[in-house]
Amino acid sequence: MAQTVTEYDTIAAISTPPGEGAISIVRLSGETAVQTANKLFKGKDLTKVPTNTINYGHIIDPDSGEVVDEVMASVMRAPRTYTCEDIVEINCHGGIVGTNRVLQLVLGAGARMAEPGEFTKRAFLNGRIDLTEAESVMDLIRAKTDRAMQVAVDQLDGDLRKLITNLRQEILEVLAQVEVNIDYPEYDTDEMTTKMLREKAELVLSRVDELLQTANQGQVLREGLATAIVGRPNVGKSSLLNHMLQEDKAIVTDVPGTTRDVLEEYVNVRGVPLKLVDTAGIRKTEDKVEKIGVERSRKAITQADLVLLVLDASQPLAAEDRELLDLTKDKKRIVVLNKQDLPQQLDMAALANLVPEEQIIRTSMLDVSGVDALDKQIKNLFFGGIENSQSTVMVTNARQSGLLRQAKASLKSVLSGIDAGMPIDLVQIDMTAAWDKLGEITGDAAPDELITQLFSQFCLGK
Amino acid sequence: MAQTVTEYDTIAAISTPPGEGAISIVRLSGETAVQTANKLFKGKDLTKVPTNTINYGHIIDPDSGEVVDEVMASVMRAPRTYTCEDIVEINCHGGIVGTNRVLQLVLGAGARMAEPGEFTKRAFLNGRIDLTEAESVMDLIRAKTDRAMQVAVDQLDGDLRKLITNLRQEILEVLAQVEVNIDYPEYDTDEMTTKMLREKAELVLSRVDELLQTANQGQVLREGLATAIVGRPNVGKSSLLNHMLQEDKAIVTDVPGTTRDVLEEYVNVRGVPLKLVDTAGIRKTEDKVEKIGVERSRKAITQADLVLLVLDASQPLAAEDRELLDLTKDKKRIVVLNKQDLPQQLDMAALANLVPEEQIIRTSMLDVSGVDALDKQIKNLFFGGIENSQSTVMVTNARQSGLLRQAKASLKSVLSGIDAGMPIDLVQIDMTAAWDKLGEITGDAAPDELITQLFSQFCLGK
Repeated sequence: MAQTVTEYDTIAAISTPPGEGAISIVRLSGETAVQTANKLFKGKDLTKVPTNTINYGHIIDPDSGEVVDEVMASVMRAPRTYTCEDIVEINCHGGIVGTNRVLQLVLGAGARMAEPGEFTKRAFLNGRIDLTEAESVMDLIRAKTDRAMQVAVDQLDGDLRKLITNLRQEILEVLAQVEVNIDYPEYDTDEMTTKMLREKAELVLSRVDELLQTANQGQVLREGLATAIVGRPNVGKSSLLNHMLQEDKAIVTDVPGTTRDVLEEYVNVRGVPLKLVDTAGIRKTEDKVEKIGVERSRKAITQADLVLLVLDASQPLAAEDRELLDLTKDKKRIVVLNKQDLPQQLDMAALANLVPEEQIIRTSMLDVSGVDALDKQIKNLFFGGIENSQSTVMVTNARQSGLLRQAKASLKSVLSGIDAGMPIDLVQIDMTAAWDKLGEITGDAAPDELITQLFSQFCLGK
Repeated sequence: MAQTVTEYDTIAAISTPPGEGAISIVRLSGETAVQTANKLFKGKDLTKVPTNTINYGHIIDPDSGEVVDEVMASVMRAPRTYTCEDIVEINCHGGIVGTNRVLQLVLGAGARMAEPGEFTKRAFLNGRIDLTEAESVMDLIRAKTDRAMQVAVDQLDGDLRKLITNLRQEILEVLAQVEVNIDYPEYDTDEMTTKMLREKAELVLSRVDELLQTANQGQVLREGLATAIVGRPNVGKSSLLNHMLQEDKAIVTDVPGTTRDVLEEYVNVRGVPLKLVDTAGIRKTEDKVEKIGVERSRKAITQADLVLLVLDASQPLAAEDRELLDLTKDKKRIVVLNKQDLPQQLDMAALANLVPEEQIIRTSMLDVSGVDALDKQIKNLFFGGIENSQSTVMVTNARQSGLLRQAKASLKSVLSGIDAGMPIDLVQIDMTAAWDKLGEITGDAAPDELITQLFSQFCLGK
């Protein structure tokens, strides 16, 4: 990617998470970033300071002359910056009102409010990073476990880009050779060309297949595994939930833009990020001894990729238990036989007809026994194979895997075309399509709308 | 305050608000801050870079050799830093997992986890700021309105410190003079000394009184005015609440350290920050048509400094209305006669016996009429006087006003002692006590426990 820097207008946004903290940052990027910040800054002339320096001063409201905040202004000059443009980061005392006021003043001084992901989009448009690296930036921010983070860091480092770029290079070489052979039809090279195309298509196809095999796990790592805890009232769902949420394993994510109490709760079970479904429902049904609300469980089960179905082993199997067992029978599930500390009343023979033994884990929330086995089972269900392979080049999102599947289809057409004895120039079209699709992954051949849509999913200020 | 810098051990914390954002910062301060960060940093030798520079590189896990994050490391060397110590700020890609991992590595490399407010505490201990300036740092972060922020910025600028320091200087001068007079008893200076003491005590007392008059408003600005919206079901409480929460006026504050849905909701009504009490209760009682739960209202009223009592003007006064009117009769309150758009059924004559006319505001949530009048009334109730005075030196917390009241008591003892003809050396003791109490405000004479307790209320990383 060439280091050609295009100048865009100057954008600004708050780049730290919303809320009260010790420091918050208002970030500007663009041709006039330094001049814009300088209009509000009292302390030094920012237009004259060297690049990559931190400068103490105050932000002044130019209308009233009032001091708005005491700040440190970092000046970073193009092209060796995040966006490849001039950047100023204003480090404020981290309040909500103060930081917003500084942002408003910056916008008043001529900057435009940045769209979500626009800083990273500029890094892409200015050729510093490709689309897989851009995506990894957001994966890094949203990573729920160490392993998810490691995959994102490697992707940010260009591992996936390099792999895809190499595959495209392989295809390009064979296409060039085919071109040569077509241009010189006096040599009868059809057979050789066909053989070369087949070999190359098979090679690239096998690599694409390997990548596609990482896609499921990559997506779970990235987005979390939607997990529902279901069961009758008082079987111990709430205790199980609280156990999972304790010990700093829990990551609570606020859904932005809402003042209501919608929270997404994640737990990290041995590297598997679980996104818990309807935890409010669990608290509610366990607080009051009321009917379970099978309707609510049904909804939770539908949303879940993994179901933890809790049964009370100290009681006989109830009709509701059977109903829940039936509802979850085609799901990835673990049946948790809780209350092992009490005399056992559950008819194990009857249960054996309904649940394969390997899906059963026995626990007691009283002495927290069996919970380790549960964690292990969850991990094995999803990362049994991959941890040994140590492969960190992973496909982490639906966009990438969708394009890989399209490339795969084109490569298969190449092979079936050759088998059917189709003319080389038709086979060539399919090979070129595979090259194009792989190019969309890195953004070398991505349409504008895709790029716009992709960056709109980023967070503000990135 | 002398610029003597004492060296402490190196502390570290995440200084940005918790959550996902574009940038998060791990901050280190102390004698070995640069060396500690340098152990994990690959890119440049941070121990050799100039002060106030930003350095691109990677954080590496020294055990595994893995790249943990791509970062910018800001190096700021003592003494011209926030803490007067060496500071390194590691700007990470703002994820929760990644930032925590960087912090863990920093702690593993020899830094100690900072206590809440410990960076600012060091700025105080190293003599860069006094206690009122330290307090203003947190006020700035927690400010709910522009005006609260402005008061904090002025206090951070040393306005309150200068005022208190001047008052102490006045007292010190008279005490020195008294000392001189006592040392030379051959001159009969008793009368002169007494006159001087009285004049000075009266002067300082009047200044202290002026400051104390700002204390109530200062505290409301700082902490928000606890406000309850009460009324029978379906009178329009929920519509009023939603109206107040709309239009970016709302600031929702997460209570840290909880995964439950405890939210504090603030609204900014013409500069007055209202802290809304029991908004969940309002949503609940308006959702279902159920008995109001007078018990719940009673609790909300007890917690509130201001009550907005909503009545349905299209219905006769109900028993519950009367009960609520009685419960709130000694409170600061505004009685909102809602549903002005419907035919009026409320007996205004009966109401006039229960509520002074100036407490009544007429509204309709249908066409949002009268809401402006309500906002104005709220503002007038609390900031009627102060906005004209333009005084921004304000006492903003209970610690400051408590000490001012103690100083005031000592000054009054000086005056009553003089009136009663007490010996000069006894009067002198009271004058010295006033000097001490004022000194506690700025921290020039503050006990260690107070300082520890004060900074423990700060947020982490500040």
